[in-house]
Amino acid sequence: MYKYMDDSFALHTDLYQINMAESYWEDNIHTKNAVFDLYFRKLPFGNGFAIFAGLERIIDYLQTFHFSESDLEYLRELGYKKDYIEFLRSVRFTGNVRAMKEGEIVFGNEPILRIEAPLIEAQLIETGLLNIVNYHTLIATKASRMKQVAGDQPISEFGTRRAHEFDAALWGTRAAYIGGFSGTSNVRAGKRFGLPVSGTHSHSFVQAYRDEYTAFHKYAKRHKNCVFLVDTYDTLKSGVPTAIEVAKELAGTIHFEGIRIDSGDLAFLSKEARKLLDQAGFLDTKIFASNDLDEYTMMNLKAQGAKIDAWGVGTKAITAFDQPALGAVYKLVSIENENGQMIDTIKISASPEKVTTPGLKNVYRIINNHTKKSEGDYITLSFEQPEKEVGLHMFHPVYTYIGKFVTNFTVKDLHEDIIDHGALVYKSPSVQEIQSYAQQQLNLLWEEYKRSLHPAEYPVNLSQACWDNKMKNIEEAKKHNRKSVLV
Amino acid sequence: MYKYMDDSFALHTDLYQINMAESYWEDNIHTKNAVFDLYFRKLPFGNGFAIFAGLERIIDYLQTFHFSESDLEYLRELGYKKDYIEFLRSVRFTGNVRAMKEGEIVFGNEPILRIEAPLIEAQLIETGLLNIVNYHTLIATKASRMKQVAGDQPISEFGTRRAHEFDAALWGTRAAYIGGFSGTSNVRAGKRFGLPVSGTHSHSFVQAYRDEYTAFHKYAKRHKNCVFLVDTYDTLKSGVPTAIEVAKELAGTIHFEGIRIDSGDLAFLSKEARKLLDQAGFLDTKIFASNDLDEYTMMNLKAQGAKIDAWGVGTKAITAFDQPALGAVYKLVSIENENGQMIDTIKISASPEKVTTPGLKNVYRIINNHTKKSEGDYITLSFEQPEKEVGLHMFHPVYTYIGKFVTNFTVKDLHEDIIDHGALVYKSPSVQEIQSYAQQQLNLLWEEYKRSLHPAEYPVNLSQACWDNKMKNIEEAKKHNRKSVLV
Repeated sequence: MYKYMDDSFALHTDLYQINMAESYWEDNIHTKNAVFDLYFRKLPFGNGFAIFAGLERIIDYLQTFHFSESDLEYLRELGYKKDYIEFLRSVRFTGNVRAMKEGEIVFGNEPILRIEAPLIEAQLIETGLLNIVNYHTLIATKASRMKQVAGDQPISEFGTRRAHEFDAALWGTRAAYIGGFSGTSNVRAGKRFGLPVSGTHSHSFVQAYRDEYTAFHKYAKRHKNCVFLVDTYDTLKSGVPTAIEVAKELAGTIHFEGIRIDSGDLAFLSKEARKLLDQAGFLDTKIFASNDLDEYTMMNLKAQGAKIDAWGVGTKAITAFDQPALGAVYKLVSIENENGQMIDTIKISASPEKVTTPGLKNVYRIINNHTKKSEGDYITLSFEQPEKEVGLHMFHPVYTYIGKFVTNFTVKDLHEDIIDHGALVYKSPSVQEIQSYAQQQLNLLWEEYKRSLHPAEYPVNLSQACWDNKMKNIEEAKKHNRKSVLV
Repeated sequence: MYKYMDDSFALHTDLYQINMAESYWEDNIHTKNAVFDLYFRKLPFGNGFAIFAGLERIIDYLQTFHFSESDLEYLRELGYKKDYIEFLRSVRFTGNVRAMKEGEIVFGNEPILRIEAPLIEAQLIETGLLNIVNYHTLIATKASRMKQVAGDQPISEFGTRRAHEFDAALWGTRAAYIGGFSGTSNVRAGKRFGLPVSGTHSHSFVQAYRDEYTAFHKYAKRHKNCVFLVDTYDTLKSGVPTAIEVAKELAGTIHFEGIRIDSGDLAFLSKEARKLLDQAGFLDTKIFASNDLDEYTMMNLKAQGAKIDAWGVGTKAITAFDQPALGAVYKLVSIENENGQMIDTIKISASPEKVTTPGLKNVYRIINNHTKKSEGDYITLSFEQPEKEVGLHMFHPVYTYIGKFVTNFTVKDLHEDIIDHGALVYKSPSVQEIQSYAQQQLNLLWEEYKRSLHPAEYPVNLSQACWDNKMKNIEEAKKHNRKSVLV
């Protein structure tokens, strides 16, 4: 019924990118080398850190970037001229990408990705990159907050039905796994990413058989590992006793792995259910809890001594319910001028935190050799070599009088070369490796940054050279613009 | 790098559906006719109504439903047995779907979709259907709240970069259009659905040219319709005067359609910018505003007399920021027993509003012939014919003493036949037709239901027969279950 097939992601962008690209091309500056930083300013959920996710999806997006014939046909219909459309036909991503690894711990105002590419290419990919980074990073970070409360207990992602359409369910559960979840109910994600999948039966299964006794028996006939859902009628008077009865009758043929409670007061019900299970000798049978859980509810349940062994989390994780958007931005920081020189650029704003940091930059984590903990992150201009310094002056990028002098440190470059002149030079780890990496990196952080409520602010500092360059650019911007400007 | 391709949506479901389906098949009840209702209980955002969206996507999902070879291979790897996997290979959706049209005004506790299908099929599609309905309906409803504030002024959807991955950007902007938005920045959505697309340039375009004068001229060289972004440096001292200067220099060659303000105090800036434009004779040049807008901010800006002609809305619409999930559920209401008779089923809960309404049902809107406004919705058992009644007793389904007697009415069946024994019998309207339909249906509602804050509660009533049947089922459930149950 539609005129055009959906056969590429090149048009998965804002129209203004197509229009700006046209002007760059018309003006013949489209091949000028441009550097964009992708970063967010503010951590989500009041958390002390974020976990970067989405790189694998970005790599695929960039490596397959092209305008399909139907894309070009549609642009023609919109009124774009033939010469520009012919040009677009050959556009591919030929630039460089340096980026943090997936699972990296990331903070505000540090470049997660650094794109260095012909201006037109860098511009056309902006919206797609932000769409990916914002969602994946948001969910990995939300999941890590829940995992922190759960500790060693497993959390399964159950949110597909509440996700924002299919892609969010698929990639969101991958991101949740990166953040520390143990698996998912989404079978497609299990297939696609090799994630552990779990799930047994729902209330409708019990309804279909009218009573729990029959339903549990029917389920157990075909499935050896049984987690019985016990709250269809009455958890303590019907569900748990029936589960125990069936498990006893089938002793030796099934593994009574657990019961799941999906409604009611989870603290009270889990404690009472635990007693019933223990009295019946099912000491190893686990109690799975679900029902609109988030890190706050989980923490409260634990504080009340709820006897919950494993968690199923839906809506609150997959939608990042309490803050469903991360505000990552993509800013031009340097561009080649008519003489082939790279000129740094700045975006001025009345809000100090919104002024961009010009130049081609690197990001380092400064690890104290004695404590093995991070002293903070350190953003330099690309020519700097902090690993060769014996001491670093680390100071706040806005309140510059707040600072410290750091010695006896190890420098970790947070960026990897991902794409080099359009060619992939990076091998994506498995999602299990990414999850482990995130956990390891969290160990570099002092506990004060990992508190879920009111964590301390982790230092993200500029090198002196980077800071000086920023100030110089602010001054120049004031002079350069024809009219007076605010700083 | 992955073992399996992503080549069907059959596994886009929770694992428990696959496990329940296996037990139904093992028990040979998988072909029993089952009826499920899909509905939500509570309206989102405290709104007085919701706008249903997502049917077109559902039709495509159901019409193409199948397990691919790689799906089956993956299930084999998970340990499912060969006989079951062979059976799954032939599963298609062969049931009936009755559903509301997209754009229909919908309320809590009334079936949006009614699925009547072999039990196994109805079960396997649950998660996919909910994933679609929840997101599409949420966004259409959120957008309609903003449209109500905007009145005749256009609102463009700009949220792709903050959407929850690609599908949400694509389908979310379609849903926003259904809710009343005028277009989108997402070019792929424009191509796919025929939505109007818009957008001119960003801050980085101005930065690339260092100053606004050059940037606006360069843009205008290739683009006849110009909306200049005026807040890169200083809106009133630099952006607007420069836009005016360029527009005067290019008078006759470009259409100075508007300016866009994306930061700062939009009320103050728009009023001052309006004066500057008017003084320069650009009386028809529009002021476009964006920057984290939602219905509350828009209403406040209007109350302050902001001179805004058109709105660009990103994050707050595409993520439904203040409530990013709708809680639609999918409940078994009737199932064929061993004798081939349909037996109604009920899910009991301690919360009265969570008790399901058994039986195969229809939903009608009761329109007063005199006022032409709706008196409420009326849910009947399928054999009832309210159009043949001269008077209807409409009473509250929980507080049954609240009610009214309605005469001189017209009955509108809110369900259409969509799929009949697996065959599509419905032609999806264009998205423009759907948008118009939603607007028309809103006209049937008294204003008191359309207030954005604290609207009156629209009546969704059960017929006497439907209510009696529910009570009978509650009594039977109490008796039938082996253990005592709560009601």
